[in-house]
Amino acid sequence: MTLSELETPCLVLDRGKLRANARRMNEHAQRHGVPLRLHGKTAKNIEAVQAASGGRCDRLTVSTLKEADYYLAHGITDLVYAVGIAPNKVDRVIGLIRRGAQLRVLLDSLAQVRAVSERARAAGVDVPVLIEVDCDGARSGVPVAGPALAEIARACHGSAGVQLAGILTHAGGSYNCASVEEIRALAAKERGDAIRAAGIVREAGCPCEMISIGSTPTALFGTNFEGVTEIRAGVYLFQDLVMAGLGVCEVGDIALSVLVSVIGHQQDKGWIVTDGGWMALSRDRGTARQSRDRGYGLVCGVDGLPLDGLTVSSANQEHGIITSSQAIDWDRFPVGTLLRVLPNHACATGAQHDRYHVVEDSREIVAVWERINGW
Amino acid sequence: MTLSELETPCLVLDRGKLRANARRMNEHAQRHGVPLRLHGKTAKNIEAVQAASGGRCDRLTVSTLKEADYYLAHGITDLVYAVGIAPNKVDRVIGLIRRGAQLRVLLDSLAQVRAVSERARAAGVDVPVLIEVDCDGARSGVPVAGPALAEIARACHGSAGVQLAGILTHAGGSYNCASVEEIRALAAKERGDAIRAAGIVREAGCPCEMISIGSTPTALFGTNFEGVTEIRAGVYLFQDLVMAGLGVCEVGDIALSVLVSVIGHQQDKGWIVTDGGWMALSRDRGTARQSRDRGYGLVCGVDGLPLDGLTVSSANQEHGIITSSQAIDWDRFPVGTLLRVLPNHACATGAQHDRYHVVEDSREIVAVWERINGW
Repeated sequence: MTLSELETPCLVLDRGKLRANARRMNEHAQRHGVPLRLHGKTAKNIEAVQAASGGRCDRLTVSTLKEADYYLAHGITDLVYAVGIAPNKVDRVIGLIRRGAQLRVLLDSLAQVRAVSERARAAGVDVPVLIEVDCDGARSGVPVAGPALAEIARACHGSAGVQLAGILTHAGGSYNCASVEEIRALAAKERGDAIRAAGIVREAGCPCEMISIGSTPTALFGTNFEGVTEIRAGVYLFQDLVMAGLGVCEVGDIALSVLVSVIGHQQDKGWIVTDGGWMALSRDRGTARQSRDRGYGLVCGVDGLPLDGLTVSSANQEHGIITSSQAIDWDRFPVGTLLRVLPNHACATGAQHDRYHVVEDSREIVAVWERINGW
Repeated sequence: MTLSELETPCLVLDRGKLRANARRMNEHAQRHGVPLRLHGKTAKNIEAVQAASGGRCDRLTVSTLKEADYYLAHGITDLVYAVGIAPNKVDRVIGLIRRGAQLRVLLDSLAQVRAVSERARAAGVDVPVLIEVDCDGARSGVPVAGPALAEIARACHGSAGVQLAGILTHAGGSYNCASVEEIRALAAKERGDAIRAAGIVREAGCPCEMISIGSTPTALFGTNFEGVTEIRAGVYLFQDLVMAGLGVCEVGDIALSVLVSVIGHQQDKGWIVTDGGWMALSRDRGTARQSRDRGYGLVCGVDGLPLDGLTVSSANQEHGIITSSQAIDWDRFPVGTLLRVLPNHACATGAQHDRYHVVEDSREIVAVWERINGW
């Protein structure tokens, strides 16, 4: 079967590009002697994470417990759930641990330590936890400065059912960097804060085996990972237009696209109308804040090569409107023409679909891979 | 089971509000003597559309052929697929017709007439088609003025396998109106253009049985539907913050919300962090262009009543950041607190989930309803 036989809209994944993206990160991590814990939230699929590691993936980061369930069922036991734990999820975490997961949860408050301890004690299970440290003020985490970090570490260490496994930080602010130099500086701060935080935890008399840092930009541009026990990254596997805009990859590295059909023309307005609306592309407008706004995505031919100047400039639920910076040759895009739209944000676009149509160097579909959406 | 026992994030649907929203539209349509064809794209669920019609739903609009499949399997045969037909979907349409669907497809070009005719002839099936007419320049459709409309009508009428069923228009531009007066004016134009278009089709010697118009704002504020054979609307069933911002409903009418948990505080920044990120809320920022920007959603207590001034002002994949226009009483929102976030756009937020937890006048879950996402 080839792309030309598919019903649109649907998701296309280029396995060759995925492998090349994975190789670049794997080699970078190996060169710096730091283990990589791939984030399973972008692909939400076992074949993709195995393709990224030559079939040797033995540890993952997850963003939902459904991902943890799924990857555990596929034999990956060494897991980090990198979202601060909500009390109503602890029982499910305990169930995962009982089924063999070495699943660490994240927290940044004494209230979470108490919530985990209470349920873990009742269940007679030890739940490994990581303390989230804030390195860039972008989201969650305890500051490195101030008494909270040591307090929480001691509370973890002293609470039955809680096993302090280390600290974790995420320089998510790197998505908003204006240059590669800024990313490098943030990568250095991410590592520095993590090392300092681990020092504070140990000085408080607590263990700190794991020192986990990362985001795709800081993992790829970091040059010193000394003292860090692992880096985490996810979106690099597919890459996307936000990453290309940051200078983290080239547009040609983007492995994910949405296959759409031309369903009409509004020639007086310069619009090519497709059946790829925001339901297929997502509402993500991540490039809007970058110097080059890609609308709802950059338009390629069915071969995956960008068509100069064509972007999806607006989107309804099931309609995409493509405009061009140049005059459109309408005869080139008759009704039924297949196009591939590169996403602003691979995690968001992927989540609109339940499967990937996998290609490699041609239009032939070599596999169909499912996605584990939801919670 | 009650909301307090659910794992977050998840979707909550208030059936009492849904019924009240439906009643308002049903009574409006009855008062004006025009049949209503509910759009099944918002709920993507049979129980919701049946609750909206007292169990008597006998016709629907759909935005995907998957919806058509699903609603047909639940006994609803009278369907309009309101997205311009792509050639690669015609075979599936034929399959639906063979299984008993009275499914009309939409087109606005001679190329689509040819694509439908070719496959329908080969299959020995007649495919009913509606010509899409552009009433507001917002998306697809043939202009009322000019020769294209009559040409396409004659092509439909003269093509084997194609059965011209009428015309359809959609004043989707109403979502961008600045006032109820603007909506009323657009509703009048939507009807006027549809009536003129039907006249042109008939003058060209072609049948035009169906004259279908609608969008939630123009359907609700239209006061004259003479000559129109049906109105279509979907989002009114759940309502949302965009509709409230337009003056189409009150915030208290919104039937859909996302249940989230507080997972942390960043008190120095004034942030309540929750596990409801853009994956649960969608990336839709529809209120950003309105006079009152609601961020990623308006925050309510678990009882569904808005908490004064609290909005989800930013979102990561699995993290939502709530800020307030007033000082936050942190003790009121400890870790584990359940909140309900009202969506900007019900269609987009609903699509991030695979089921509804249905409540009615209390926290008790009275039903779980599935959603038919995808294509």
